[in-house]
Amino acid sequence: MSFLYKSDPARGAVWARHFAERAPEVPFHIWPDVGDPAQVRYLAVWTMPAGLVETLPNLEVLFCVGAGIDQLDLSKVPDSIPVVRMVEPGLVAGMVEYATLAVLALHRDWPAYAAQQRERKWQALRVARAQERRVGVMGLGVMGQAVLEKLHGFGFPCAGWSRAARRLDGIECHAGEDALPAFLGRTDILVNLLPLTAETRGILSRGLFEALPRGAAVVNVGRGGHVVAGDLIAALDAGHLSAAILDVTDPEPLPPEHPFWIHPRIVVTPHIASETQPETSASVVIDNIRRHQRGAPLVGLVDRQRGY
Amino acid sequence: MSFLYKSDPARGAVWARHFAERAPEVPFHIWPDVGDPAQVRYLAVWTMPAGLVETLPNLEVLFCVGAGIDQLDLSKVPDSIPVVRMVEPGLVAGMVEYATLAVLALHRDWPAYAAQQRERKWQALRVARAQERRVGVMGLGVMGQAVLEKLHGFGFPCAGWSRAARRLDGIECHAGEDALPAFLGRTDILVNLLPLTAETRGILSRGLFEALPRGAAVVNVGRGGHVVAGDLIAALDAGHLSAAILDVTDPEPLPPEHPFWIHPRIVVTPHIASETQPETSASVVIDNIRRHQRGAPLVGLVDRQRGY
Repeated sequence: MSFLYKSDPARGAVWARHFAERAPEVPFHIWPDVGDPAQVRYLAVWTMPAGLVETLPNLEVLFCVGAGIDQLDLSKVPDSIPVVRMVEPGLVAGMVEYATLAVLALHRDWPAYAAQQRERKWQALRVARAQERRVGVMGLGVMGQAVLEKLHGFGFPCAGWSRAARRLDGIECHAGEDALPAFLGRTDILVNLLPLTAETRGILSRGLFEALPRGAAVVNVGRGGHVVAGDLIAALDAGHLSAAILDVTDPEPLPPEHPFWIHPRIVVTPHIASETQPETSASVVIDNIRRHQRGAPLVGLVDRQRGY
Repeated sequence: MSFLYKSDPARGAVWARHFAERAPEVPFHIWPDVGDPAQVRYLAVWTMPAGLVETLPNLEVLFCVGAGIDQLDLSKVPDSIPVVRMVEPGLVAGMVEYATLAVLALHRDWPAYAAQQRERKWQALRVARAQERRVGVMGLGVMGQAVLEKLHGFGFPCAGWSRAARRLDGIECHAGEDALPAFLGRTDILVNLLPLTAETRGILSRGLFEALPRGAAVVNVGRGGHVVAGDLIAALDAGHLSAAILDVTDPEPLPPEHPFWIHPRIVVTPHIASETQPETSASVVIDNIRRHQRGAPLVGLVDRQRGY
């Protein structure tokens, strides 16, 4: 029995140390050192080289080192092999920081003040109270819930939207496509944390932007594929949207000629909102191996039909 | 008996409505309508025209509409007249928002990513965990305490420094000049919320910057007079400080030729971190008038010897 890791080597070294301490009975290999392929029961990847799974006849669990699995081609992974995405506290904490930063920056008009600084213009804009600024989060998984809880603590009226119905303390919850217009109509700052699936691809498009109130702003920390780039730029240029903060783009890296880079009301960061932390994620993976060995449900198990 | 208000007229109109409802026995005048000067017992100002106090023979309390009183010349105000600065929840909430935004922006390298966006450069920088980023707040009044409480909730190791000793849950508290080097030596992001007094003027100067660890960053939400501008620019240019976010400057408005505007690692906002909210501040002032009338201690009473 062994564990094969294929992702960032620095994080892999931390995982190797944790495995040596806490799971010494599971030999840990860092790609391209596969060891005996027939021994590999557990595989952890961000993306997968074509043909890799076929060389591992006794693979039992496929772990993704990220929270989303849309970058993985699962067509060659037998249905019998559970796929597990990363749900770990370090990743959640980073997302809470970034989403809070982005929402506060939009709430407090930082894109406008940055433009004024370039013009050396000292002019106060009206400060809205948090109670007047309605925040909405799409995607109510572990990260979406943690983001809403933090934003609620600033006094923003908060709502969430998800595919399946949820109940969250102090948060107005909307579910399903029929509820989307009502959710959008009350949202001044929209945060996208949806998984990227066939259903959600291109969801941040003209129709959605038009359903937001005039002057609304958008934060995308989901995936670049959620956004229809031309529709976003058109909504900003028409003044219907006031600003957008994008941590993810399609493609990544964003090519130098892409219009997002130079749009005066778009902030781009290079997919750094949140990253899997080596220490906490190693613990989560070892705990999941223990669960698998005793037949308990895996944390972060992907529903392959649903796509996340 | 009457109340004379001399500041922003829009906020004055809200105060007038609150007084009419909650304190109808106190006629409310908005400058320049003084009414009978001999009737004025209460005066609220941001700045004071020379000679105003001398025309009000029966003045009993001077209210400042801001949290700081350094902009007021109190030399003509008799010692017998209590001076009260603004301590109100709206002002505190705005400061918590701005300080959190500024600290998160520095923690997550937004000034560096803004520079990369200008160069159309997609490059992730190392994400430090909150637990590795030590935040320090100078000034532990109502605002400093609220800011620390919020930042502590993100997992930043937090410390505070003040003139007199304080105890705050979960916060490492330092007091007095002798404790300053130890406080600065453990501070990666410094937030200044001190009052401006003869003692604190120019405190953000070369010696203080040198006592911070290399790569530290500074947020000034106190007063522009706390900063020695040339020392700040020198510390940034030498690479000892990584960035500065300044909401206050000396003078204000910041003149177009001032080097702060164009420094690549300085963010300037036009004194908008926090503003007195008309609704909540009206309640606080009316409550203080009731306290004064029954001889109870006033909330926000200034110690004129101490200067705040």
